[in-house]
Amino acid sequence: MSSKIARFIDDNEEKLVQQRRLFHQHPEVGFTEYITTYEIYHFLRGMDCDLAIGKSVLSSDERMGVPASDLLELSEQRAKAYGVPEEFLEKIKGGHTGAVATFDTGRKGSHIALRFDIDALPVKEAGSSGHIPKNEGFNSCHNGEMHACAHDGHASIGLMVAKFLNENMDDLSGKFTLIFQPAEEGGRGAEPIVSNGWLDNVDYFFSGHIGVEDLPVGKVSATTAGFLASSKVDAYFIGKAAHAGLEPNAGKNALLAASASSIHLNGIARHKDGSTRINVGKIEAGSGRNVIADSGKIEFETRGSTSELDDYMMSEAERIIHSTAGLYGVESSLETVGKALNVSCDDDLIEVVRDSVKESSLIDEVRDVANLGASEDVTFMIEKVQKEHGKATFMVFHSPLKAGHHQSDFNFDEKVLSVGLETYLSVLTHLNNKESSSS
Amino acid sequence: MSSKIARFIDDNEEKLVQQRRLFHQHPEVGFTEYITTYEIYHFLRGMDCDLAIGKSVLSSDERMGVPASDLLELSEQRAKAYGVPEEFLEKIKGGHTGAVATFDTGRKGSHIALRFDIDALPVKEAGSSGHIPKNEGFNSCHNGEMHACAHDGHASIGLMVAKFLNENMDDLSGKFTLIFQPAEEGGRGAEPIVSNGWLDNVDYFFSGHIGVEDLPVGKVSATTAGFLASSKVDAYFIGKAAHAGLEPNAGKNALLAASASSIHLNGIARHKDGSTRINVGKIEAGSGRNVIADSGKIEFETRGSTSELDDYMMSEAERIIHSTAGLYGVESSLETVGKALNVSCDDDLIEVVRDSVKESSLIDEVRDVANLGASEDVTFMIEKVQKEHGKATFMVFHSPLKAGHHQSDFNFDEKVLSVGLETYLSVLTHLNNKESSSS
Amino acid sequence: MSSKIARFIDDNEEKLVQQRRLFHQHPEVGFTEYITTYEIYHFLRGMDCDLAIGKSVLSSDERMGVPASDLLELSEQRAKAYGVPEEFLEKIKGGHTGAVATFDTGRKGSHIALRFDIDALPVKEAGSSGHIPKNEGFNSCHNGEMHACAHDGHASIGLMVAKFLNENMDDLSGKFTLIFQPAEEGGRGAEPIVSNGWLDNVDYFFSGHIGVEDLPVGKVSATTAGFLASSKVDAYFIGKAAHAGLEPNAGKNALLAASASSIHLNGIARHKDGSTRINVGKIEAGSGRNVIADSGKIEFETRGSTSELDDYMMSEAERIIHSTAGLYGVESSLETVGKALNVSCDDDLIEVVRDSVKESSLIDEVRDVANLGASEDVTFMIEKVQKEHGKATFMVFHSPLKAGHHQSDFNFDEKVLSVGLETYLSVLTHLNNKESSSS
Amino acid sequence: MSSKIARFIDDNEEKLVQQRRLFHQHPEVGFTEYITTYEIYHFLRGMDCDLAIGKSVLSSDERMGVPASDLLELSEQRAKAYGVPEEFLEKIKGGHTGAVATFDTGRKGSHIALRFDIDALPVKEAGSSGHIPKNEGFNSCHNGEMHACAHDGHASIGLMVAKFLNENMDDLSGKFTLIFQPAEEGGRGAEPIVSNGWLDNVDYFFSGHIGVEDLPVGKVSATTAGFLASSKVDAYFIGKAAHAGLEPNAGKNALLAASASSIHLNGIARHKDGSTRINVGKIEAGSGRNVIADSGKIEFETRGSTSELDDYMMSEAERIIHSTAGLYGVESSLETVGKALNVSCDDDLIEVVRDSVKESSLIDEVRDVANLGASEDVTFMIEKVQKEHGKATFMVFHSPLKAGHHQSDFNFDEKVLSVGLETYLSVLTHLNNKESSSS
Repeated sequence: MSSKIARFIDDNEEKLVQQRRLFHQHPEVGFTEYITTYEIYHFLRGMDCDLAIGKSVLSSDERMGVPASDLLELSEQRAKAYGVPEEFLEKIKGGHTGAVATFDTGRKGSHIALRFDIDALPVKEAGSSGHIPKNEGFNSCHNGEMHACAHDGHASIGLMVAKFLNENMDDLSGKFTLIFQPAEEGGRGAEPIVSNGWLDNVDYFFSGHIGVEDLPVGKVSATTAGFLASSKVDAYFIGKAAHAGLEPNAGKNALLAASASSIHLNGIARHKDGSTRINVGKIEAGSGRNVIADSGKIEFETRGSTSELDDYMMSEAERIIHSTAGLYGVESSLETVGKALNVSCDDDLIEVVRDSVKESSLIDEVRDVANLGASEDVTFMIEKVQKEHGKATFMVFHSPLKAGHHQSDFNFDEKVLSVGLETYLSVLTHLNNKESSSS
Repeated sequence: MSSKIARFIDDNEEKLVQQRRLFHQHPEVGFTEYITTYEIYHFLRGMDCDLAIGKSVLSSDERMGVPASDLLELSEQRAKAYGVPEEFLEKIKGGHTGAVATFDTGRKGSHIALRFDIDALPVKEAGSSGHIPKNEGFNSCHNGEMHACAHDGHASIGLMVAKFLNENMDDLSGKFTLIFQPAEEGGRGAEPIVSNGWLDNVDYFFSGHIGVEDLPVGKVSATTAGFLASSKVDAYFIGKAAHAGLEPNAGKNALLAASASSIHLNGIARHKDGSTRINVGKIEAGSGRNVIADSGKIEFETRGSTSELDDYMMSEAERIIHSTAGLYGVESSLETVGKALNVSCDDDLIEVVRDSVKESSLIDEVRDVANLGASEDVTFMIEKVQKEHGKATFMVFHSPLKAGHHQSDFNFDEKVLSVGLETYLSVLTHLNNKESSSS
Repeated sequence: MSSKIARFIDDNEEKLVQQRRLFHQHPEVGFTEYITTYEIYHFLRGMDCDLAIGKSVLSSDERMGVPASDLLELSEQRAKAYGVPEEFLEKIKGGHTGAVATFDTGRKGSHIALRFDIDALPVKEAGSSGHIPKNEGFNSCHNGEMHACAHDGHASIGLMVAKFLNENMDDLSGKFTLIFQPAEEGGRGAEPIVSNGWLDNVDYFFSGHIGVEDLPVGKVSATTAGFLASSKVDAYFIGKAAHAGLEPNAGKNALLAASASSIHLNGIARHKDGSTRINVGKIEAGSGRNVIADSGKIEFETRGSTSELDDYMMSEAERIIHSTAGLYGVESSLETVGKALNVSCDDDLIEVVRDSVKESSLIDEVRDVANLGASEDVTFMIEKVQKEHGKATFMVFHSPLKAGHHQSDFNFDEKVLSVGLETYLSVLTHLNNKESSSS
Repeated sequence: MSSKIARFIDDNEEKLVQQRRLFHQHPEVGFTEYITTYEIYHFLRGMDCDLAIGKSVLSSDERMGVPASDLLELSEQRAKAYGVPEEFLEKIKGGHTGAVATFDTGRKGSHIALRFDIDALPVKEAGSSGHIPKNEGFNSCHNGEMHACAHDGHASIGLMVAKFLNENMDDLSGKFTLIFQPAEEGGRGAEPIVSNGWLDNVDYFFSGHIGVEDLPVGKVSATTAGFLASSKVDAYFIGKAAHAGLEPNAGKNALLAASASSIHLNGIARHKDGSTRINVGKIEAGSGRNVIADSGKIEFETRGSTSELDDYMMSEAERIIHSTAGLYGVESSLETVGKALNVSCDDDLIEVVRDSVKESSLIDEVRDVANLGASEDVTFMIEKVQKEHGKATFMVFHSPLKAGHHQSDFNFDEKVLSVGLETYLSVLTHLNNKESSSS
């Protein structure tokens, strides 16, 4: 089989890069992946699979942190302008993005699920001359949005996995579920997909990430540790407006409450038991310069290397926010809009990955484990699969990185796309073969 | 003449209220008064006056703090939807709002200029049941904008003054310039009107404000003291984005720099020499929750009871902002977008006002002076008139106030509209009479 | 009489300066004026007056903000080392400083009370070469304490007034009470003196201050306005210690609570109704570098141009302190340790002062009123006298000032001492004469 | 030999506890261990060893963070009152505390060095009824100082090791250096001892700590990981005093600069590469309530799991302090007063410790490694020994802990003293035996 895979990659390498660049040019933040979802749909339709879109992909009510309706509409209009057909948009509008493709061979065998995340970040892409997407003309054409976390690559790999499955259905057994997940950033998209049952009765689950550590292309980590449990929370402050010149004493300053909360949240004490994180990523408060601000909002997240540590951070955060509001005589409230867990990958799969790619010419090292040190809502899927006695892992396809993830000049070496694709294909066929040979 | 004025007011009282309510329903913040300008134009055209709109009203280049072009466009589209004709919009678009009507009797006499400000505030109007504009159905239909500073009343009074002049041209002498000024809030509209020469060679200048102190209707202050000198400034912070989970140490946090600047600006020490004010009215920073914010902006204003005190506040503010940026390794810059001065009204006009309204049945007390304790860019006009040896005052038409200026439930007693109108008309005719009798 | 006063001043000018310099060298902060009290006692004993010291001067229980007993003891030991006899110290120890001298002529006449404050400040005196006390060798020999508010001058003037009264008893009528008040700084000494009845049944009350405005010697203000109402408060924070390296999360950080309270107190909004002040003058928190601080204390004061404004500041301060403590999970408590009021001097006394010094060669101008813009607990005395229908004023003896009050290089022109002395003597004899002539 | 050790412990267990309680009652912070040093000297003199005290123990000039001379004197006076002879005090005064005892058998063999730290913390000991030192009457009689980190136990164990060596000199070979180190807290005492050559040519180095993890008595860790590199720094702020009521604008507020520095230091971003710590443990600023504070000081420490991480913390700290000073127009300076390194213990010694205590009845488990997660200046000694090719470790003698280290109710189970003593004695004799048997 490995020579078949090598040939497939040779034949599709250009397409793989091309598709990634298409996604890169049209980055869409979580739950607004209308163009992206359409391109995925467009690529997959006609294949020998069941193709789910819209509310059957994710549970509408379980979604957290869906953008406000006016922002959704702007993205929908952009998608229309791009050429997404209206009847298609109708099915996914209101933030029902993402897709699931199911390839059922009809033959006895394991149920293997793969997950590819597809959303972008609210980062303005670098326009500097050293930035390759800029140089090669495939930089973001959505101002203020960018694929700065390699999900463009993930999505492209997922499409090629589908193409391979479609072309080789006759040689495979069991069932394959390919999940194209929206809204990974912010920990919002995975849980509502789990809620809709897509991870029920899965025997093997694989997902992965490009980059993470700045290493040469050809190195793959079979599992990942260091998933940070995380909470994504919005805090609202309601004060009282007053004329800032005439009666400064009459206001209740929601802007200062939001600002001071940001400062004090940033000062939550480190914890003896492990890594923690806090970030207030966005603040908006006040309406006019000469009015004491009567409202404010901050968007923040906490993380911990265990769920207990994330709980510690959140309990500190709650006290800080409500106390700081009190300090300014302002009212405060919190809304959780995203979550990620801390899980462990199945160590058994290290051997599986290692054996699978033994003959690869692209992959020169399989490492046991990469350290993420960040949050991933794939953890909701891994938890679900393991709860039902399946095995799950999150792999890393390393690449040289000129800039860190989420930075405006983030990019990866596109040769890693083939490495990722080969890993997935090798693992799938290896597990299939093992089963047929053992049966 | 006073009986003629009384009759005119009787006849036009309803119109005066109606016009105010029309403005109240369509509040537009500074330099976006497209609907308001059109309604003024619509009311005045056909009268026996020269009517200036667009770039002849205010010097395009002298304007500070003009909203971003996309915001201007949104307002222009709103005006179009309202019914403002496209050819009219064409002349005032890009923030060239406001109007000047000149009534020249052709007869020898003083040049008297009056100024009425017309802009609204970025305040969301109260929807509570006790709020009269809500009860009577004329509350703001522009979400997030509100006439919370009585400029709706000022504009309406100005229109009725024009109507009176138009109807009584034959009985008057000299020249009358009626200025409908945009963008008073933020101290942005007056200076570019002065730059265009509208206050050159003015003998008498009158303007005024409804409210200020919570007093029964019928009390008028002939002059105003306590104009606070003021600076309106935007501060920008440029940091460096980074993944908040993966490498929190790699960012330069512009959100925290903006927040800490707000806190520390708010702590500028009081000054021994008099009143000062500081308000950060608006903050926006960051893009996404899991990204260290790489940009931030605050909009603030300082005030002082003298220009020296405002200078003290601004020099403190600059040091604070740049140092706080340094604290986070972030770059900062400042842009001045508005200014107001500290001036003194001409005391001689106290007698003039008092004599003018002696026979009024609406006005039961003329006070020497009201204390504003706030900033007004009318000060640029007063300064100009006085520099050329004219006399100028800023009157106050008091009203009971349930809530302070700029608050979401601000309103005034509409009977004060007649008081204001009568005061202007009485003063104009009184000065005319004095001159004719003395000549 | 005025020639007699002039001669007295001529004869005693050197003594006046010498005595001031003695006090200047031995500055003692409030309620530790052991040396100062002894020197006053030493100067007055033997005169024809009743001389009160110890608990009869001030009500022990009414004192606020008495230093801790170990600090009192250090000062008492210092006084002993200076040469204050033990049996004298015994009577005033524990912070019962100050003295009252009563000269009763036995003849019918008004009861006139004068008050001289005697305490120093916790300021380290400047050692720079331009500082006159340093140059002339009479700078503070108490490290960290300094007469930086001219009370050394006030006390010296008071002694010379006593000497004059003693020498001229036969020519005077009525009763004279000379109060040497401790602990004016912090607003602590006046109220317990009032409590002991020393201001009962007083017909005229005079006190005064050297400096205030930087003017040439020879100018006197007959009354003072702008007394700021003031509260002096200590706030305590109780947290929980923990090893800062091993378990930083286990502490409750009282140092950060105290620090953040200071920052946020400093940000109390200005008030529309007038001047306010806030100062955290001292902070102490924590014990060791590697321990999360479990205790903290701040010493602050609020002021307002009216008592309502001071109340506003204090109610803001309380909310801020308790909320900030909550922010860090720390407990907080407040203790009021001093107070001053807002009062008005009696305008009638302007004429009295002006008439009294008409023939003075030292005083070339009597101004109606000086603006203090600060707090003085003489206000408790003035309030008491006025409540019982006496007349009271607080005069200012202006002097050139190289540096502001409370600064480490504060000093005044010693010629002002004669001006102050002459004013008091002139007023006393003038009132006496008026009464005899009118009787 | 192990039975000899067991018997020695049986015979001296009571003395071991008694000696610990003596130290516990007389806690002395770093470089003021006058009583402690005397008690150590008193115990050791007469033994068959060289006994060094005073400047030969530690290099006077290399000491950082020596308390101010007035504080040293207070402690010296306390020691004199306790009964420390004047001629002894003379030799160690000025902060030259600690002692080194050298037992040289004269026989060929390894040079083994042991180190016991002896200083206390500036923590006020708990007075609650559940606190055993309180219950059993051996709580601190020095207000504000406490043995809250078990150094009382370390010192006591050291004395008993000396006693054993003294009693068994004939059966031993090689050389033994017992270092009683002052000022471990704050990372100040080890480096000047290394400077004086005491760690030159050492073959084996052992030190250890009681507690660390809350485990039953009987568990020993043979090595320690997780030494945090640390910097101990004082920051000074120099502002300008002014009268807080009269001219609040004229001051430069050093108190607010110190407070804001504390808040902002506490907000240094976590680092992707590992654990970091920051603690401002002490703040003092300002002199009087009504004076704008002209000086302030904070005492803080940074830590990192590597020296690079500590460098990161310090470079952030420096920028923050200088920028925050700039924010208030105040001058700032920093002084490093202590340091600790990050080192690795020699893994070979795990086997040595395990073998040594094989027959112990007190020790039921030898763990490979304990995780400190804190700083220890023993790292300077370990670094020195390893640099000269000796082997070094830092062991942990676990104990149940009701409260964390440095907390006011810290205490340990006194049975751990015997465990510690047995471990040292076993290791010493085991190494001796191994050498004799191998020779």
